Amino acid sequence: MQTIHANRLKALRRLLESYRGSSLLETHLPNIYYLSGFSGDSGALLVEPASATLFTDGRFTIQAKQESPGFRVKIHRGSLLQAAGEYLHKNGRAHIAVSPARLTLAGWKTLMTAAGKSIKWAAVDGLVEGLRSVKDSFEIERLRDSARLASAVMNEVIHLIRPGVTELEIAAEVGYRMRRGGASGESFEAIVAAGPRSALPHARPTTRQIGKNELVVLDLGAILRHYCSDLTRTVYVGRAPAEVREWYQAVLEAQAAARHSVKAGVTAEAVDSAARNVLQSKGLGRYFVHSTGHGLGLEIHEDPRIARGQKTVLPAGCVITLEPGVYRERVGGIRIEDEALVTDRGAELLTTAPKEFLEL
Amino acid sequence: MQTIHANRLKALRRLLESYRGSSLLETHLPNIYYLSGFSGDSGALLVEPASATLFTDGRFTIQAKQESPGFRVKIHRGSLLQAAGEYLHKNGRAHIAVSPARLTLAGWKTLMTAAGKSIKWAAVDGLVEGLRSVKDSFEIERLRDSARLASAVMNEVIHLIRPGVTELEIAAEVGYRMRRGGASGESFEAIVAAGPRSALPHARPTTRQIGKNELVVLDLGAILRHYCSDLTRTVYVGRAPAEVREWYQAVLEAQAAARHSVKAGVTAEAVDSAARNVLQSKGLGRYFVHSTGHGLGLEIHEDPRIARGQKTVLPAGCVITLEPGVYRERVGGIRIEDEALVTDRGAELLTTAPKEFLEL
Repeated sequence: MQTIHANRLKALRRLLESYRGSSLLETHLPNIYYLSGFSGDSGALLVEPASATLFTDGRFTIQAKQESPGFRVKIHRGSLLQAAGEYLHKNGRAHIAVSPARLTLAGWKTLMTAAGKSIKWAAVDGLVEGLRSVKDSFEIERLRDSARLASAVMNEVIHLIRPGVTELEIAAEVGYRMRRGGASGESFEAIVAAGPRSALPHARPTTRQIGKNELVVLDLGAILRHYCSDLTRTVYVGRAPAEVREWYQAVLEAQAAARHSVKAGVTAEAVDSAARNVLQSKGLGRYFVHSTGHGLGLEIHEDPRIARGQKTVLPAGCVITLEPGVYRERVGGIRIEDEALVTDRGAELLTTAPKEFLEL
Repeated sequence: MQTIHANRLKALRRLLESYRGSSLLETHLPNIYYLSGFSGDSGALLVEPASATLFTDGRFTIQAKQESPGFRVKIHRGSLLQAAGEYLHKNGRAHIAVSPARLTLAGWKTLMTAAGKSIKWAAVDGLVEGLRSVKDSFEIERLRDSARLASAVMNEVIHLIRPGVTELEIAAEVGYRMRRGGASGESFEAIVAAGPRSALPHARPTTRQIGKNELVVLDLGAILRHYCSDLTRTVYVGRAPAEVREWYQAVLEAQAAARHSVKAGVTAEAVDSAARNVLQSKGLGRYFVHSTGHGLGLEIHEDPRIARGQKTVLPAGCVITLEPGVYRERVGGIRIEDEALVTDRGAELLTTAPKEFLEL
C-alpha cells in the first residue's frame, strides 16, 4: 500500500471510531480513488479496522492489482452491492457505516437483503468527503498543475474567438489543447456561449457562429492526473456598449470582493454575500442567478458550496471557485471565475488568466 | 409542447394507469430530456394526468422556457427534492410513483418529509427507461448520425497511430474531430490503450508513447444532438505474431456470431452466449472478462444489458453494442465493437469502420 493511502485510511479509521468503531462500506468512486488509488468505473470499498477490501468486476482485475497494492481485491459478477452484501454476510461484520447520499433505495435494498439481519447499519454522510475537502500538499500540487493547464489553454483559445467561428469549433480547440497538455479529459464539457446564448449559465456549445458585437462566455476545465480545474472568462467581440462595460466591471468587483473575503475560518455564506452585495448595490442582484462557487478536487463540484445559507466554515487547504455572473435574457451574460486556495492569510488564486475587459 | 414530447407523455401516462393512475415524479435527467426536451443539469419532472411540471433552479430559467414549451416551470432555490416535495404537499396529489433505482436514501427522506403524510408512494423502476429502450424513428435517425460521425472519426484517427505518438495525442485527435463534426462532446473519454495497457478493458489514455509491435485498442463515441455512439477497433503496430492474429480472428468470429444471433424476439443472454461460445471453443473464454454489450441512446449505457443471465427479450427498435474482447495480462487486449439496430429481420449495423486485421 502506498503511504498516502495508508495515511488517508488511518484518518478515516480515526473518524470511524466515533461511530462505535464501525467499518465503512464506501460506494462513491471518487472517495474510493482517494482512499485506494483505484480509478476503475465500478467498485465498492470496505474499510475495516485492520483491512481494506475492494470489490470490482472482471474488467478491472488487472487494473485493481496495479493501482491498489495492499488492498484485498474481490472480483464479482452481477450486482456490486449484492457481492459486497454477501461478503458481509459470510464474514459476520457487526457495524457497517454507509452513506445515504450515495446509495440508491434500490441499491440499499439489495445490499441489506444480501448482508442479512446480523449487520447493524449506521447512516453517515460525508465522512470521506469531509477529509477530501481539506487538500493535502500532494493534492494541492496536482490542483495547481491542473489550474495552470486550464489557464494556459484559456490564454490560447480566447484569441481564437472571432466572428464566423462556431461555438463548437472553439470547444474543440479547448478539448484538443487540454489533452495535448496531458489532461486525461475535461472536467466538464467546455461552455462556449455567444450572444444571447451567453445568458444561459450552463449553455452547451452549438454550431452557431459567433457574431459581431456579442458577448462570449468561455468556461473550461481539465482533468490532469485525476484533479479538476475550472476557469471562466468573458470577452466582447467588437466595441462594447457602455452598459456592457459597466456590467463587466460590476462582476469583476464582485469577484474581487469575494476573493478578499476568503480566509480560513470564514463561512461559505460570507464569501457568497461579499460577491452578492456588490451586484445588489449596482442593481444587478436579480441577474446573479446562481451561487458564488463550489469546492473542487477529484470532482468538479465538491463541498463546500459557496452559497446563501451555507454556514460551513472554510478550512485552510480548501480549494473553491469564485464565479459571480450576471445574465440578461436575450442580451447576454458575463461570468468571471477563478479558483482560490483558502489559507490562513487569505485566498491564493490557482488560475492565472488575465481578466481586464477584452474587446476582440 | 412539441408533438414528440406530447406523444411520449401520452405513452407514459398509459403505463401509469396500471399503477392506480399515479403521477410520476421523474428525477433521472436523461428521462426528463426524453419526456420534455429540457437538457439542463438539474431538474425533476412531475407528470400528472393532465399536466407536467418541471422543477429546476435559476441557472436554467431561460433554458427551460426555450426547451420545454408547454411545460409548467417551477424555479426553486436550495434542494430540488425539497421543492418538489413542498409542491406535492401544497397541491395534495394522492398517488405518486418514484424510481428506487434513481433516488438516493437521503433524497428520498428529503422528498418524503417535505411532501407530508397524505401522499401514497409507489416504487416503480424503469418506466421511462422501458419506453426509451425502443427507439422511435426520430431517435434512430439521430443514432445513425452519431454512429456515422464515430465511424468517420475512427477511420481518420486509426491512421494516426504509429510508434512515438502518445495515447493522449490520439485521444486529443478523437475529441477534436468529434466536435469539428458537430458533436457536443464525447459519449465517454476515448480509450486509447497501447501494449500491455490494452489488456485493461477500461484504460484511460496516458502520455505513454505507442511502441513497435504492440496492440492498440481505440474505443470512442460521440454525443451528437444528445445521442451517443460507441465503436471500438484494435490494430497492431508492426507485424503481428501468429498468436495475436488468431486471437483477433477469434474475437471477430465471436462478434459475427453475436451479430447473426440478433433478431427481435431473442433474449439478451442468447446474444451474449453466441459470442461467448465462440471464444470458449477456442480456449479464450476466460480472457473475455466482460459482457457482450449494452443498449445505448441518450446514455452510453442503457438497458438491455447483453450479458449472462439476462432473460430480457430484445424488441425491434432497440440499439445495442456487440463488443466481445480478449485480454491477456502483460501482453495486450483485443476488442471489436459495433452498434446494432435490432429489427424483425436481424441486426443492422449502425457503425461502419472496416474490421479486417490492420497492421500499421
